[in-house]
Amino acid sequence: MGTENKEIKNRLSQLRKKMKENGIDYYMIPTADFHNSEYSADYFKTREYFCGFDGSNGTLVVSADEAGLWTDGRYFIQAANQLSGTGVTLFKMGEEGVPTIEKYLTDNMISGQTFGFDGRVVPAEEGELLEYLAKLKNVTIKIDKDLAEEIWEDRPTLPCHDAYVLSDELCGRSFKEKLADVRSKMKENNTSMHLLSKLDDIMWLTNLRGNDVECNPVALSYAMITDDMFILFIQSGEITDEVRAYCESNDIVLKDYAEYGEYLSELVLTGNILIDKRNTNYLTYKLVADKASEAGYEIKDCSNPTELMKAIKNETELKNIREVYLRDSAKLTEFIYWVKENVGKIPMTEYSAAMKLDGMRAELPGFIELSFPTISAYNANAAMAHYEATEDSAAEVKAQGMLLVDSGGTYMGGTTDVTRTIVVGEISDEIKKHYTATVSGMLELADAIFKDGCTGRNVDIYARRPLWDIGIDYNHGTGHGIGYMLNVHEGPHNIRWKNSDAANKTELKPGMIVSDEPGVYIEGSHGIRIENIVEVVNRSESEYGKFYGFDHLTYVPIDLEAIDKKYMKPETVKLLNKYHKTVYDRISPLIEDEEVKAWLKKATAEI
Amino acid sequence: MGTENKEIKNRLSQLRKKMKENGIDYYMIPTADFHNSEYSADYFKTREYFCGFDGSNGTLVVSADEAGLWTDGRYFIQAANQLSGTGVTLFKMGEEGVPTIEKYLTDNMISGQTFGFDGRVVPAEEGELLEYLAKLKNVTIKIDKDLAEEIWEDRPTLPCHDAYVLSDELCGRSFKEKLADVRSKMKENNTSMHLLSKLDDIMWLTNLRGNDVECNPVALSYAMITDDMFILFIQSGEITDEVRAYCESNDIVLKDYAEYGEYLSELVLTGNILIDKRNTNYLTYKLVADKASEAGYEIKDCSNPTELMKAIKNETELKNIREVYLRDSAKLTEFIYWVKENVGKIPMTEYSAAMKLDGMRAELPGFIELSFPTISAYNANAAMAHYEATEDSAAEVKAQGMLLVDSGGTYMGGTTDVTRTIVVGEISDEIKKHYTATVSGMLELADAIFKDGCTGRNVDIYARRPLWDIGIDYNHGTGHGIGYMLNVHEGPHNIRWKNSDAANKTELKPGMIVSDEPGVYIEGSHGIRIENIVEVVNRSESEYGKFYGFDHLTYVPIDLEAIDKKYMKPETVKLLNKYHKTVYDRISPLIEDEEVKAWLKKATAEI
Repeated sequence: MGTENKEIKNRLSQLRKKMKENGIDYYMIPTADFHNSEYSADYFKTREYFCGFDGSNGTLVVSADEAGLWTDGRYFIQAANQLSGTGVTLFKMGEEGVPTIEKYLTDNMISGQTFGFDGRVVPAEEGELLEYLAKLKNVTIKIDKDLAEEIWEDRPTLPCHDAYVLSDELCGRSFKEKLADVRSKMKENNTSMHLLSKLDDIMWLTNLRGNDVECNPVALSYAMITDDMFILFIQSGEITDEVRAYCESNDIVLKDYAEYGEYLSELVLTGNILIDKRNTNYLTYKLVADKASEAGYEIKDCSNPTELMKAIKNETELKNIREVYLRDSAKLTEFIYWVKENVGKIPMTEYSAAMKLDGMRAELPGFIELSFPTISAYNANAAMAHYEATEDSAAEVKAQGMLLVDSGGTYMGGTTDVTRTIVVGEISDEIKKHYTATVSGMLELADAIFKDGCTGRNVDIYARRPLWDIGIDYNHGTGHGIGYMLNVHEGPHNIRWKNSDAANKTELKPGMIVSDEPGVYIEGSHGIRIENIVEVVNRSESEYGKFYGFDHLTYVPIDLEAIDKKYMKPETVKLLNKYHKTVYDRISPLIEDEEVKAWLKKATAEI
Repeated sequence: MGTENKEIKNRLSQLRKKMKENGIDYYMIPTADFHNSEYSADYFKTREYFCGFDGSNGTLVVSADEAGLWTDGRYFIQAANQLSGTGVTLFKMGEEGVPTIEKYLTDNMISGQTFGFDGRVVPAEEGELLEYLAKLKNVTIKIDKDLAEEIWEDRPTLPCHDAYVLSDELCGRSFKEKLADVRSKMKENNTSMHLLSKLDDIMWLTNLRGNDVECNPVALSYAMITDDMFILFIQSGEITDEVRAYCESNDIVLKDYAEYGEYLSELVLTGNILIDKRNTNYLTYKLVADKASEAGYEIKDCSNPTELMKAIKNETELKNIREVYLRDSAKLTEFIYWVKENVGKIPMTEYSAAMKLDGMRAELPGFIELSFPTISAYNANAAMAHYEATEDSAAEVKAQGMLLVDSGGTYMGGTTDVTRTIVVGEISDEIKKHYTATVSGMLELADAIFKDGCTGRNVDIYARRPLWDIGIDYNHGTGHGIGYMLNVHEGPHNIRWKNSDAANKTELKPGMIVSDEPGVYIEGSHGIRIENIVEVVNRSESEYGKFYGFDHLTYVPIDLEAIDKKYMKPETVKLLNKYHKTVYDRISPLIEDEEVKAWLKKATAEI
């Protein structure tokens, strides 16, 4: 801390020079590609380039004499470290007294100034809000400039990798069947065209996959759907013979990704257009909205129909997911055994442990890639909720304390995500208390029974309650949806207690899968997170309605060395024992090594 | 059932005649006075007059050849009975496939038709929606006609009773202190005038009370607040010398209630106006909004500041409420003993039992009135959630089954509300199962720990879960706020799991009091409701924030004759025993009769 970061300061001063040249007083750099993807390819990592903070969520705002970075609770500690010496101020989103970006801009910008951002990396919804605020302040908006282009010399190129086709058998439903459903939703909304920009939605709908974003099997693309046409804009370099043949036989018209903007410009509208403003970029939206307004048509802004269809997994997807989760769970179980056996005996760092696990996963049949970079965090490092150890900076894992590992893979048949915090040596009674409460939260949420109509908001308290009982909370959501051979985070449902965005209106329905991941983060001391993925299932039906529950998909032992029964309710002890019995029953047949199997028997013993 | 209700049919045909004369095709009669009060004085009971249904919530829509009544889940059974033979169709609100009134009107009305209602009995918010829908369908709206005026010959007059003044000592804060807070909120919202129409808000703010609505100690009134003036529009017949002197000494300008409309018409605006559209009638709103629009001022629509101030009880109010609840609980305990002792021995009906209880309450010091008409419902009648027995129709209470009693009083020092379901004879094992689950829900919700920021929606699942576990649900909210010597139902907070109206955004804060009342309603068989009132209290505070819980205000034994431990979680048994111990400790000193005291000892014994 305290040392000046000259590289970042130099880049920021270049940016300020460009801002001046372009008459821009405040310039905003969000973290997004043209599709509002959660993870962006390196080409889009402009915010990291200009401030050094490399967490997955953050927005940089730069003016002549100030620069600020906004990020969320997962990254407060990490961001403070990485911004040190850059002169960039950290704005902790959601904390009391911390202004939102909109508030900050409104408070600081004055009449006549110009506010700039690249209109392709801001969702329409947000762009419209900024436009409105700018108008109120008599501020000009400039959205056609990506200032990084003229500064970032060694900027990576746009990713371009071979796309590939998934069989209808693996997907459960064909592209044409899915498309027919989307078209019927378009009709319901009285629209004759639908622009789809979200990459995982396009992939799921077309049964295609790509490899343009690390850990996300997606291809950069746009889709334009009309009553009788389906156009896929995709880089020609991605189209293999297999993809071309598939598209031909499915009447998918292929056009080049780079031509999307021009195609839109020349488009003649013939009816209303369905657009999801959350996931369509502002530049695209402005173009189409202006056209629609001229032609007397409406933009119907609603959740794009693909999103909910994708979230409710079909029977084939569920069957494959359940199998994949068992194999992935068995592999993680073997890894936990390896860590416990080897810690203190062989050199082990957070990084080497992660590499070991990544290598083990890669051996599994159908492995495609990691679903996200493995988080391997030792003791105090685990207090940083989404800390990533690098080879150089990784801490040594000693036979003391705990190692938190949050990891997952994408396989032919499903995408996994799981967190276990592994005891590697002595731990304090306080840690046991926190650990036991975290496990209680995970198990009690998974045990919920809830009526049709409930959202994640109705059940979130089950995961937090054992922590709230002891005056502790965690600064992140309890659960997120997960893709099918797709992104590890997907909507529209989630499990959160507080914010009331669109996601909170999505009811939990059978076939959805969602994470259940409470945690405890004590800065400078320790971090605990336990994450299972659960499936929403039918439990009962009566004249009062349908009642649902969760089935576990993840079957990995909970570390009993950190469980103290005196901190667990008797009912929850029963849940733990029941879970562990199933873990052994389902996982042990997948484990060949007799020593591991014997250990698993003990690790899942009744308490 | 099946018999024709000629009286109602005759009234409806008179209404249809008037509609024709006035060129109205669809006429809507909601259940409201000019202030969106929950209970309306008899003068306003037009809906009941025209269809016979006398539940507290319902809207009648009449056209030339159809009439429909919309009501909520509490009243489905009662409404079906009362509408029998009237030709009026029951629309069960919230049930699948049942259109909302708006949907019904949109589907049925055709271009060029006229839709009418009395604009004084519809909140502005709703009026605007109806206006918008009407425009879409090219339907004309007529809001200046109360058609009942020309039909209802023996219509009651507007209520007009003496208002009275509460001492500042009893209220904890003076009118002037409260007014200063309201004015500071007006300033925050950049408004120089505030129209307040909600009766209990006006009463709480002025520290006045009235007697114009049965069970609601309110006076019909409007308030107009500016930076330097406070005008109270109230019927001159209500102003006693005491009230006049109080108003004079507090700079409250008195004007006649009937002059409100005219005063508004002649008003010259000097700035923006704060109005709560939920609780200002549509006619008033239209008048002021048109004026504002002409003069270039804005209407700031937000929750009126008084509402939240009123909901968070001050220390004086809380102290008095706690005492009042103890006395009220002791009295109800004596009543329960009386019922159990006398059932099967003396003649007893639902009605006579209610009269007995009402009489006992009236003996308590400071008794003003019942907080709502006592609900006394025997066996299957209790399945109708808000059934009211009349002297003639009341069922005989025999030494078999259960008697549900939902009751409360308003006293100098607080308003109470409590429900107990009393075992009066043999009950089935199924009933014990339902009863035990209901009690579990009440106790488990009251035991919640929740973080600052939670709304009732976050905790509702605790009350429902024991019922959801056995596939049962109840068709009403879990909790409502309660006034201080005021209305038994008050907002803005509540405890509900589903609907996402304004109330659900109100966070639970220490000092709020709220009901906790799960129930089971088995049509034709039995009804169970257990209702305690709880107070939101601080539990702990840490770097993670503030954590709250509930303290019981109600201390009345739970009927152990209907509790079967095998249907209750061990943790919940502990809660029940703990609650019962406190009931005995706090209530027994208030009970003089040694026999009752001895019974209470047994009734609260550990199980």
